[in-house]
Amino acid sequence: MPLRTRIPRPAARRLSLYLREGESLLAIGAATVSSERLGARLGISAAQVRRDLAYLAQAGQRGVGYDLSTLVSMLSRELGLERPWHAVLVGVGNIGRALLSYAPFRESRVSIVAALDCDPAAIGQRWGGRMVEPVANLAAVVQRERVELGVIAVPIGSAQKVADLLVGAGIRGILNFAPVEIVVPEGIAASNVDFGVELRRLAMDVMQETAALERASANRRPA
Amino acid sequence: MPLRTRIPRPAARRLSLYLREGESLLAIGAATVSSERLGARLGISAAQVRRDLAYLAQAGQRGVGYDLSTLVSMLSRELGLERPWHAVLVGVGNIGRALLSYAPFRESRVSIVAALDCDPAAIGQRWGGRMVEPVANLAAVVQRERVELGVIAVPIGSAQKVADLLVGAGIRGILNFAPVEIVVPEGIAASNVDFGVELRRLAMDVMQETAALERASANRRPA
Repeated sequence: MPLRTRIPRPAARRLSLYLREGESLLAIGAATVSSERLGARLGISAAQVRRDLAYLAQAGQRGVGYDLSTLVSMLSRELGLERPWHAVLVGVGNIGRALLSYAPFRESRVSIVAALDCDPAAIGQRWGGRMVEPVANLAAVVQRERVELGVIAVPIGSAQKVADLLVGAGIRGILNFAPVEIVVPEGIAASNVDFGVELRRLAMDVMQETAALERASANRRPA
Repeated sequence: MPLRTRIPRPAARRLSLYLREGESLLAIGAATVSSERLGARLGISAAQVRRDLAYLAQAGQRGVGYDLSTLVSMLSRELGLERPWHAVLVGVGNIGRALLSYAPFRESRVSIVAALDCDPAAIGQRWGGRMVEPVANLAAVVQRERVELGVIAVPIGSAQKVADLLVGAGIRGILNFAPVEIVVPEGIAASNVDFGVELRRLAMDVMQETAALERASANRRPA
């Protein structure tokens, strides 16, 4: 097996976007895609697309572009998504229910196979075809469903405790929606989705777009 | 006014994380923070923290660290969050309701001031203190509340239409939760939060962590 290059995180994120776009183009019957078209759909330059796809063995052909089914399967392999990945969700509040009813998961190789909660009123309810089980079942669920990923969608105050439970149950990666950083041991992957951080970042993007427009208009003014 | 440097997007994202951590440290009574402590809370190296904070005028003091209240106010200014930013949410399904009940927004300078939906059953309901209004009110709401940001939390099929409505109403930045890329005119900031992309990226992180551990253990083996 060849030694896998460690792809930088921002490039890895873009590869995952290319995979999604590639899959949706395949789904509408396209056979090839150019770096220009792929980039335009994502607001990424064609040059950046070509640089990113250079991490894969396959190169696009000038004037033809990338063969979509090859691209999708190479991206899947590169992203470790050739085989199925199972995730367990802890917390079936609004975010948890949004995740359980998120349709694209159903076709994806990364899927939420079980949902847990500690609220007796939530246990036994069905969301997106999965029945909510008590958090006490965590270790059994992880074994039974060969779960490797955990999703935390509980209130701030319980997030670290749930992270510890997930790590204790043998999970190898955690996606945390609680607006607090969780601490995990070395070797466990963890990432956060924080709505507040996303909205602040957007405000900052708007500010920078405005500054860029102002600079451009100042440059156009006659001296 | 000094020319603002365009901060690279990944650094900008980290600045927004530093701001959040800085605010929560201030809230528990801390006066200073070291780059090591700030980094450890976020899984970022101290060296990276220092490089990122070098974008700000203020430098930390060796052995003392950064003065927290100065750091928070400089980060706020840098991130364009000194003044309030108003956002309008379109779509009050599970994601929309999660956003409306997301507590940290209430103290933040970026806040969701109005929620719209096109479902007559949803209109008039209250979530997180805001009453859902019809989408037809969009232009009036944007004027009334001085809204600059839009949040899309509608199904895939309506996302682009809502984006067009938001742009038409004069919004300058869009945060899109529908799992599809939206197209916006030049000069409008747009970013996406896609649960599937996040989970795939996590799977890939796990794969890379595993590869790194395997390499490390291979290196430790006697030759």
